[in-house]
Amino acid sequence: MKVIAHPDEAHAQISHWRNSGARIGLVPTMGALHEGHLTLAKRSKAECDYTVVTIFVNPTQFGPNEDLSRYPRTLEADLAGLRDVQVDMVFTPTPEMLYPAGFSTYVEPPASANPLEGQCRPGHFRGVTTVVMKLFQILPATIAYFGQKDYQQLTVIKRMVEDLNVPIRVEGCPTIRESDGLAMSSRNRYLDAEQRQRALSLWHALQAAKQLYESGERNVHILEQAMARELLQRGAEKIDYARVVDSQTLETIDTIDDEAVALIACFVGKTRLIDNLVLSNSDSH
Amino acid sequence: MKVIAHPDEAHAQISHWRNSGARIGLVPTMGALHEGHLTLAKRSKAECDYTVVTIFVNPTQFGPNEDLSRYPRTLEADLAGLRDVQVDMVFTPTPEMLYPAGFSTYVEPPASANPLEGQCRPGHFRGVTTVVMKLFQILPATIAYFGQKDYQQLTVIKRMVEDLNVPIRVEGCPTIRESDGLAMSSRNRYLDAEQRQRALSLWHALQAAKQLYESGERNVHILEQAMARELLQRGAEKIDYARVVDSQTLETIDTIDDEAVALIACFVGKTRLIDNLVLSNSDSH
Repeated sequence: MKVIAHPDEAHAQISHWRNSGARIGLVPTMGALHEGHLTLAKRSKAECDYTVVTIFVNPTQFGPNEDLSRYPRTLEADLAGLRDVQVDMVFTPTPEMLYPAGFSTYVEPPASANPLEGQCRPGHFRGVTTVVMKLFQILPATIAYFGQKDYQQLTVIKRMVEDLNVPIRVEGCPTIRESDGLAMSSRNRYLDAEQRQRALSLWHALQAAKQLYESGERNVHILEQAMARELLQRGAEKIDYARVVDSQTLETIDTIDDEAVALIACFVGKTRLIDNLVLSNSDSH
Repeated sequence: MKVIAHPDEAHAQISHWRNSGARIGLVPTMGALHEGHLTLAKRSKAECDYTVVTIFVNPTQFGPNEDLSRYPRTLEADLAGLRDVQVDMVFTPTPEMLYPAGFSTYVEPPASANPLEGQCRPGHFRGVTTVVMKLFQILPATIAYFGQKDYQQLTVIKRMVEDLNVPIRVEGCPTIRESDGLAMSSRNRYLDAEQRQRALSLWHALQAAKQLYESGERNVHILEQAMARELLQRGAEKIDYARVVDSQTLETIDTIDDEAVALIACFVGKTRLIDNLVLSNSDSH
């Protein structure tokens, strides 16, 4: 497994592989890897000839009062996990390599970045689209894999790729959960045992919405009320949002006609957690 | 010579050429081709295995009161000229192909886009960086050629490519001029005979700055005054700017220490013309 920090060197390696006709799978991460990330890498391994994982805690997607400095950094463990999965390359640039002096070009994200996380975390998606665009140029993969746990991020990246004609296919992969339903997240490391229990409130709130939906309820307001009630009863402390919106555009809807998605962001202690569930007539979700 | 309108088809052709190890030269244009454009195509022909010219009047780089609707469109003549130069492919997408419904991702240009044209034409460079980034994804060339006539555009694109790690080399090529000094421009077609004479004011103003510079003058204010005087005396009607700035950052300077560039934008009749001249100790400019 090659571990490469320099963008030029990483680009040269990928180009070499691509020129031989190989399919390259790319898994961008911020490290602090868990089973969700490793599942993305395994899917890439199954579908591509070479698999590249990036580990970069991207400063431009953190707000001034967010957890950039305390974000977990576990490089040695991450590399061990990726070696087990037999990833071919890990790209580990420094912030100075990706944002040198004078850096000032950004990718302004599509309209689907405006609600939800866009409201709560101004500038977050601009940082995400910018770094992902950079990674897509440095590492011209065939397919890039992202988790559906960051549903809005996946939606934004898919639209960016379409709008800017990036020749990479973006695949969303199902959220990986603990046995009790908690979505795996690097930020779960912040939780103590008592908070870990309260963190289940997101899963239970999504299940409440799902049960209502499956019983025929299509009124978004009723679903959202149920989620908020469940969250607060089970110990979520500050709800940033608990919404049901159009699954493609993330726009507000009153009634579910087509596919919708329930999305939650809330705090447990100082830890901000997100989760989501697609509400669809098909059983595929 | 292949003439291809659809982005997917153009991408497939370029990818095919690249996979064979060929060097691809790209010349993005808005059509209404003149000797300046053809010189770019010839340089690409000399340096690359395949040369691709794009013809697309990009709506997102025109302001609401600018000349988008009356911008000259001369496709048949353009194709004839490119056939003579033996270009390999011409990419001629429609606005609907590059900006489909729901399009909403833009490339926010670097800081060098803020002064000069950025002040006079708000949003112009955002349109330029966005369409150029799209073209760079659709047509992953080895080298892209741009004229130095659009000096600030060239500066902005070079920085964008660096900031977003685009794996394409950007080459600036010297401005091609008529025998009397007028910089070739698609917009020169708008000029009647009397305006054509007054359009020379830009060239004479740049020469005035150059002569002062070569006589040892390094005070930017004096050079700018000389340019403005020359412009008005020779019939320029409205000066958007006549500035001498740092040649790399385009930032304001008082005294020329390193390399500087004199840049002019002004109107002759309803036609907005731009031109520039690098002021450098070397003789290469």
